Amino acid sequence: MSTRAAAIDRLQSTTRIERDIETLGGPEYTVSADAICRYAYSPVYRNTVDYFVRELEALGYDVSEDCVGTLVARNRPRGERVFGIGSHCDSNRNGGKYDGTMGVVTALEVCRLNEELGLGLPLQLISFLEEEGSGFGQMLLGSRIMAQRVTEEDLRERFRSLDDGRSFWEHAEEAGYEPARWRESFHVLDDLIGWIEMHIEQARVMQDTGNRIGVVTAIAGYVHADVTVYGRGDHAGATPMEFRLDPGPVLAESIVELERLARTAGGNTVGTVGEIEVYPNLINAIPERIRFSLDIRGVHQELYGGVARDIATFVRAAAEARGMTADVNERQTLAPTPLDARIVAALEEAARATGEPFMMMPSGAAHDTMCVADHVPSAMVFVPCADGISHSPHERADPADAALAAEVILNAILQLVRSRP
Amino acid sequence: MSTRAAAIDRLQSTTRIERDIETLGGPEYTVSADAICRYAYSPVYRNTVDYFVRELEALGYDVSEDCVGTLVARNRPRGERVFGIGSHCDSNRNGGKYDGTMGVVTALEVCRLNEELGLGLPLQLISFLEEEGSGFGQMLLGSRIMAQRVTEEDLRERFRSLDDGRSFWEHAEEAGYEPARWRESFHVLDDLIGWIEMHIEQARVMQDTGNRIGVVTAIAGYVHADVTVYGRGDHAGATPMEFRLDPGPVLAESIVELERLARTAGGNTVGTVGEIEVYPNLINAIPERIRFSLDIRGVHQELYGGVARDIATFVRAAAEARGMTADVNERQTLAPTPLDARIVAALEEAARATGEPFMMMPSGAAHDTMCVADHVPSAMVFVPCADGISHSPHERADPADAALAAEVILNAILQLVRSRP
Repeated sequence: MSTRAAAIDRLQSTTRIERDIETLGGPEYTVSADAICRYAYSPVYRNTVDYFVRELEALGYDVSEDCVGTLVARNRPRGERVFGIGSHCDSNRNGGKYDGTMGVVTALEVCRLNEELGLGLPLQLISFLEEEGSGFGQMLLGSRIMAQRVTEEDLRERFRSLDDGRSFWEHAEEAGYEPARWRESFHVLDDLIGWIEMHIEQARVMQDTGNRIGVVTAIAGYVHADVTVYGRGDHAGATPMEFRLDPGPVLAESIVELERLARTAGGNTVGTVGEIEVYPNLINAIPERIRFSLDIRGVHQELYGGVARDIATFVRAAAEARGMTADVNERQTLAPTPLDARIVAALEEAARATGEPFMMMPSGAAHDTMCVADHVPSAMVFVPCADGISHSPHERADPADAALAAEVILNAILQLVRSRP
Repeated sequence: MSTRAAAIDRLQSTTRIERDIETLGGPEYTVSADAICRYAYSPVYRNTVDYFVRELEALGYDVSEDCVGTLVARNRPRGERVFGIGSHCDSNRNGGKYDGTMGVVTALEVCRLNEELGLGLPLQLISFLEEEGSGFGQMLLGSRIMAQRVTEEDLRERFRSLDDGRSFWEHAEEAGYEPARWRESFHVLDDLIGWIEMHIEQARVMQDTGNRIGVVTAIAGYVHADVTVYGRGDHAGATPMEFRLDPGPVLAESIVELERLARTAGGNTVGTVGEIEVYPNLINAIPERIRFSLDIRGVHQELYGGVARDIATFVRAAAEARGMTADVNERQTLAPTPLDARIVAALEEAARATGEPFMMMPSGAAHDTMCVADHVPSAMVFVPCADGISHSPHERADPADAALAAEVILNAILQLVRSRP
């Protein structure tokens, strides 16, 4: 089943990727001077898409945009099977040069290598719209539209510009698109044999373990919930310890227990208390109530779901043991996304062939690939980012790692396409 | 040393106290319709002082105001020794009818009983200014001015109206006082043999233990501090448990340890985490850092001071054990105020003589008496407030308990004055 890997000039790829990244970090491509800030349908977003249009047309690709502005470029006519690659090129409002954009740049490099080396692979590059939600407050918006995970009412009414409060619909029309045809976005996926997205890791596991390539095996699902512990607000000086109904110790015991449960569950299960709000939040007042958030994730639903159930039971019991009550309210749940075993295996083989350190790993963060994977066999490749920092102007990643990812993706697709029956 | 206790018509006292309280809860005496809200030098505060002026003048008292507006009424000429009684008649901005005001009303009732029963006790009633700090953001302002615990710069520049930002000095002058003579306020204390303040408890100990009178043995001192635990902000989904520097568990362990330390210390030591601030406070972000407050109080400085030292050591060690650091910064410290053993004993004897349930107890809250006690032998009497609620329009206390307190205070003073050498 194996085919000879393509021989790639990594230094040339690194140089080209670095040039793309640095160009798209320039003033024409960001609203803010202090960070990368671009979102649909701003002029700087238009400039960014146009950059990719020019580069892909230069390679002879047929470039178009779907009814809401998703960039699609292919080297085969519609109706012929192609392999999908890409990511998103919007940023969060205080973002860096790499999150999303480096994935599209790497897909562009795969296209370049394919043409340069005369491999003749059938490819389709996609750059999704509004992954970060910085235009309309909706994460994964472009890929959710494509996967029909939104409603028409969402697009017409509910999703509104963070800048001016006008609807997504109005903005899309003003930018020259046809949001009324949003359901047709699904057809972008029609001809795909498979899909591979490259992205920065957004954590520090790869850096800290010295790996340059991460082959993603699954994308975590999660439970997001809010816990409120109801105590009794009393004077912090005048109320003896034995007369208190202080929700603080219940919060404390719950944080410690969540950490224990997540560690015990294993299988990459994680649990985080990221938000704490104390009422009334005064130094001399025993809190009347405390709200805190739960973010519990993993790739094994039975494991992280178990942690979510156990911590809810624990919190209620801990409150009750101290004469108080606690509410646990689910905010959102999302099932994990298993990735395609055949593509993952091809990526693993291609990563091994590079001779560089790589690892198999889950993705704890959400990605557009979650929406694609319901319909097309999908996988992802991670590269490290410095100190795990992302969504920040301090975000850094190495173009040499992206070049290595381009090589891995190209060789995996080569194997997958050539071994097709 | 004992003298016969005065025989008092408690029902009559209750009726008069209730009438005073209800009158001063009327619309002429509060800025807000939904709560009691009065502070120097508002017209409603003026009306409140004038009410006491009229009642005290009707008893034949010589009534005056000091250079900043402290109400002083005495039944002996200046230079003769008198026993001080009183409290404050301002409220916090969302206050109730009882905090402070019921103490002044009870002192007024002591004056009435003294005249009515022909006891001839030499008395001086004081109603302090701005105990709640709701006019200028400075708690115990009137008694601090009297005890010279402020500077001229504080009064001229630093203490500013919460309403219009103009200085205390300007407002005092506008109200017809002479703030330039503020140091003379101290002379209000010149002739005092002793001082007794009645106040609502502001906690639920008396209610929950079924006591009607609390004889206060000491006013708690405290340590107020801020702790900041510095972790590392990482993605809550993408960062495995073993890669985290999450300040949350350090906060959690510290809350649990503070509770343990305060309980173990005993002697009415209390410890509270009333404020928690998480940065960036997002459900999907491991906190970068967490700040929380410490309020540690007690009447035994060696006990609560020990808790403050131990929790600081604990927090630093807990952070270090997890690879993080923590800062502990003292915000304010105040030594406890021991009350005068002779006056406390007289109050205890008078309380016992009533046949009603009473208790000896510390005050966890701060009171004007803290400023008086440095210069004059002082004590306090507490009465219960419903469910410990204070600083709220829901504040409730029983005028019958205040009548009982008036009886206790009168009889204690009777004993103290008559047993003077």
